[in-house]
Amino acid sequence: MALESIRYSDGKLEILDQLLLPAQNKYVSVKGVEDGWKVINRMQVRGAPAIAIVGCLSLAVEIYNEQFNDKKSLRQEIEGKLNYLVSARPTAVNMKIAADELIKLSNELAINDDISVNEMKQKFLDTTEAMLRKDIEDNKAIGTNGANAILQNKTDGSSVRVLTHCNTGSLATAGYGTALGVVRKLFEMNRLEHIYCTETRPYNQGARLTAFELVHDKLPATLIIDSMVSALMQKKNIAAVVVGADRVVANGDTANKIGTYQIAVVAKYHNVPFYIAAPLTSIDLKISSGEQIQIEERPQREMTHVGDHRIAAQGIKCWNPAFDVTPAHLITGIITEKGVFKPDEMREKVSEFLQTGK
Amino acid sequence: MALESIRYSDGKLEILDQLLLPAQNKYVSVKGVEDGWKVINRMQVRGAPAIAIVGCLSLAVEIYNEQFNDKKSLRQEIEGKLNYLVSARPTAVNMKIAADELIKLSNELAINDDISVNEMKQKFLDTTEAMLRKDIEDNKAIGTNGANAILQNKTDGSSVRVLTHCNTGSLATAGYGTALGVVRKLFEMNRLEHIYCTETRPYNQGARLTAFELVHDKLPATLIIDSMVSALMQKKNIAAVVVGADRVVANGDTANKIGTYQIAVVAKYHNVPFYIAAPLTSIDLKISSGEQIQIEERPQREMTHVGDHRIAAQGIKCWNPAFDVTPAHLITGIITEKGVFKPDEMREKVSEFLQTGK
Repeated sequence: MALESIRYSDGKLEILDQLLLPAQNKYVSVKGVEDGWKVINRMQVRGAPAIAIVGCLSLAVEIYNEQFNDKKSLRQEIEGKLNYLVSARPTAVNMKIAADELIKLSNELAINDDISVNEMKQKFLDTTEAMLRKDIEDNKAIGTNGANAILQNKTDGSSVRVLTHCNTGSLATAGYGTALGVVRKLFEMNRLEHIYCTETRPYNQGARLTAFELVHDKLPATLIIDSMVSALMQKKNIAAVVVGADRVVANGDTANKIGTYQIAVVAKYHNVPFYIAAPLTSIDLKISSGEQIQIEERPQREMTHVGDHRIAAQGIKCWNPAFDVTPAHLITGIITEKGVFKPDEMREKVSEFLQTGK
Repeated sequence: MALESIRYSDGKLEILDQLLLPAQNKYVSVKGVEDGWKVINRMQVRGAPAIAIVGCLSLAVEIYNEQFNDKKSLRQEIEGKLNYLVSARPTAVNMKIAADELIKLSNELAINDDISVNEMKQKFLDTTEAMLRKDIEDNKAIGTNGANAILQNKTDGSSVRVLTHCNTGSLATAGYGTALGVVRKLFEMNRLEHIYCTETRPYNQGARLTAFELVHDKLPATLIIDSMVSALMQKKNIAAVVVGADRVVANGDTANKIGTYQIAVVAKYHNVPFYIAAPLTSIDLKISSGEQIQIEERPQREMTHVGDHRIAAQGIKCWNPAFDVTPAHLITGIITEKGVFKPDEMREKVSEFLQTGK
């Protein structure tokens, strides 16, 4: 059973407290919107899709357990509390998008005279719960598409060794994961010989979160230091790299966690296929090339300290970009829930899906 | 004034306690062979050249302050105590080589009837002190040769941005440094715009030791994470990479701290010249290619912990090779005290120097 970061059923919500990982594996009960706001604000739940889903489900918990006399008060409650939830992490755009969609839905239902208050409540709950299922379903489709792409030339049925970077698993999504979903699928198909994960300095998402998921799910896994990728490819016969994306732009250039570009360069040199795994929601066709992506620079303390412990010499300056941009020509394929696209065909294919909705 | 890791004059020896760096900058007095053995064994002094020099100088401290009635007792003292010093870190081959040379010298002096006991003592002290001077002189020659190589196409007198990896400075040598000596020389020539140093996981020699030296000597410096090298080269116009070597073999393949090979791959992709800085003593012409170099694998704990603090998920396996091998074709030049050689001409040039001794 894959690690679950979000557990929801029948008006009950629990989330895995990511602040305690990897030292402790503990779930926190989210009893309503107040709790939802807190776990998002304190970063007990992280990752843009996960934040949106936990926020919306925390409202579902309240509404599930409440009686409404009229549609107006239900509509007001939905709108007010969703706007409150957006304020927990204002930069997490997925929560804002999800809130806007649910507010739009509740406005439509409120003015539809064919629908009772209880039907409106049920419709809201169904839509919210569907978000959780949809994220996991999309990830599973990404997993299947990615695993098939990586195995396409392995007609002898042999297993593969794969490398990933940062955390793109159950802990960053509603469950299953994007790049790590591909790895999980290979494992389920009994075709994963080994998964290597990088430490992912300076925030160590690989060593803390990905390693935790891999140990939890009993995948054959080994942690390496970020600078060992070349040595690994020289020695260990790596079949593919698969990583996530913060944003894929129209020409296929991809912004992702710092270090991704370096792995892509090194993969090219060693002739190792390099895949990006990302849902269509991470693809932004309005931006034409990676040069237009602004790169956030993070606090120096992330590099100089581990917890309260200083690891770098006093007085040294640090450069700490959070992301880098991998140019499209280094990317073998972009794995989405709708298929795997070459960077130069992605714009056209994705536009089609967005237009037809299929 | 460059950081001094070893201070010696007139029978007095002090070493910078590297176990306390970078939190504290404290010198330890070495009053004789007992102290010398301890600081080597406890790794308060590290780096093969530094260990040999501190060991021999700790014996010089004792002999300087002692009276000998006959050459036999002086010879016995030298041989016995040098063999004892070798036992402090048996794998540090430089200490063994230095001990053998000094024992050979004392045997020759002991049977030479033209030399008095005081002359023998003085000759021993001079030879020991010369080792310290020679290491620094060689490093300064490496610095000059390397700086000139990096600047050869910069005829407009402009300054350069350089990247280094691990620690190759005053703390790893008798003083000045090899790769860091090149950087120091650029700074002295007023041609260093900026030096970037990598963190150098998992042991963090860059963040702890190199960063400490750069701050101490007031060089314009910035620390980066190992996975940021590609982003740095993409954004910051790096003129050259210069790193040290654990061993350069006959065809120019070079073993050095893990991560060096990755930087070389990335430098090639970005057309950044990649230099190895190493004294002739690090060049081993008996080994024909890098494939024959055994790579030590280090304890997993180096990766999973910082001090007593666990940073990786419990139960995750680690791969921790201490070194990697950079193939000669990725190396622009090997900077030695005798000049800068292309990998394919190095064997011939170095053989010449070893034969003629010039």
